[in-house]
Amino acid sequence: MHLYDSTIPSGNAYKVQLLLSHLHIPYAITSLNILATPPETRSSDFLAINPNGRIPVFILDDGTPLIESNAIMFYLAEGTPYLPDDKLAKAQVLQWLFFEQYSHEPYVAVWKFRTYWALNGFEDLSGREIQKLKERGQAAIDVMERHLEGREWFVGTNYSIADIALFAYTSAAEQIGFSVGPNVKAWLSRVEGTKGWVKIKKDETGKCPL
Amino acid sequence: MHLYDSTIPSGNAYKVQLLLSHLHIPYAITSLNILATPPETRSSDFLAINPNGRIPVFILDDGTPLIESNAIMFYLAEGTPYLPDDKLAKAQVLQWLFFEQYSHEPYVAVWKFRTYWALNGFEDLSGREIQKLKERGQAAIDVMERHLEGREWFVGTNYSIADIALFAYTSAAEQIGFSVGPNVKAWLSRVEGTKGWVKIKKDETGKCPL
Repeated sequence: MHLYDSTIPSGNAYKVQLLLSHLHIPYAITSLNILATPPETRSSDFLAINPNGRIPVFILDDGTPLIESNAIMFYLAEGTPYLPDDKLAKAQVLQWLFFEQYSHEPYVAVWKFRTYWALNGFEDLSGREIQKLKERGQAAIDVMERHLEGREWFVGTNYSIADIALFAYTSAAEQIGFSVGPNVKAWLSRVEGTKGWVKIKKDETGKCPL
Repeated sequence: MHLYDSTIPSGNAYKVQLLLSHLHIPYAITSLNILATPPETRSSDFLAINPNGRIPVFILDDGTPLIESNAIMFYLAEGTPYLPDDKLAKAQVLQWLFFEQYSHEPYVAVWKFRTYWALNGFEDLSGREIQKLKERGQAAIDVMERHLEGREWFVGTNYSIADIALFAYTSAAEQIGFSVGPNVKAWLSRVEGTKGWVKIKKDETGKCPL
């Protein structure tokens, strides 16, 4: 099996890598330079694999490409302890996966990218756009803080791909200026203590200290 | 069962309503005014149900709230013809559901909202922001056009919740100024021809002609 990643660390690719580590599944990696002009994710070869031009893409042994980090995780986690079998619990895991992609990643991940890697940083954004990124990212982290009151994990009593998805970018949130409450901090530590947990890969550009 | 919708037509709520119609499942509706100041989706009563303050929310018979349109659909569709049982096909349905929420809805749905209902229309956006909305919305529709070449439905040979999710806002795309190719147009017609298909509810404000 084969994972398309980016040369700079991607939280979305990291989700898949963390789950593969938990599951002891070996795989090969190709890292694409998304900072190149044009980005390597927009080459005709890669667009033939993912017409949406984004990583991660996970190639199954028969050559089938799976796209979208959270869909890849769902595929890999089905039938394992990282995705509940129960119909309602499974829907609740999906609820947090969609929350992550709609209400969290577009703000927290974009903030991280602009902090460390974007050529112009935040320069090409208006003050209102910057404020919107910060406010919505903070709102997502605050929703997590309230949900974790009295809870160890996002769904039920077990660590699942809902936790993995939300961990990926939340683990960098305080470092890049978001306010992270005690429930989220304790949960981040719990994730780091899970069996097979691995850190996100080191930034080869040296710009990200995490 | 009970659906929280908005008084203006919401494509995200419509997805759930279209699937419920296909499945012949009866339900009650409460419509919240998201144009009020503050929006009724931000009342303390509603935030106790969905801390993220968004519709749709689907309340199960035992009172459990399900949040996120695509997670609600997955829950309702499991074990029905609208979601394949096959592991890979199910992951491919999810792939399109995540594509819809990440690469399509934030542009096409936002463009529709600003066209018909936003108090200031597009006025508070910079030219660059407007261009970004339009370009990314168009890119998502173009990805759909290419994928539908030689295909009837988004995944495999059957209509599924992947089609329902993408239909919701794509059905309005041409009307609001996006370019919609022949494959997408033919697919929109196929969706409209499915058994139990219903139109999105009429806009009570009269601003949306659809």
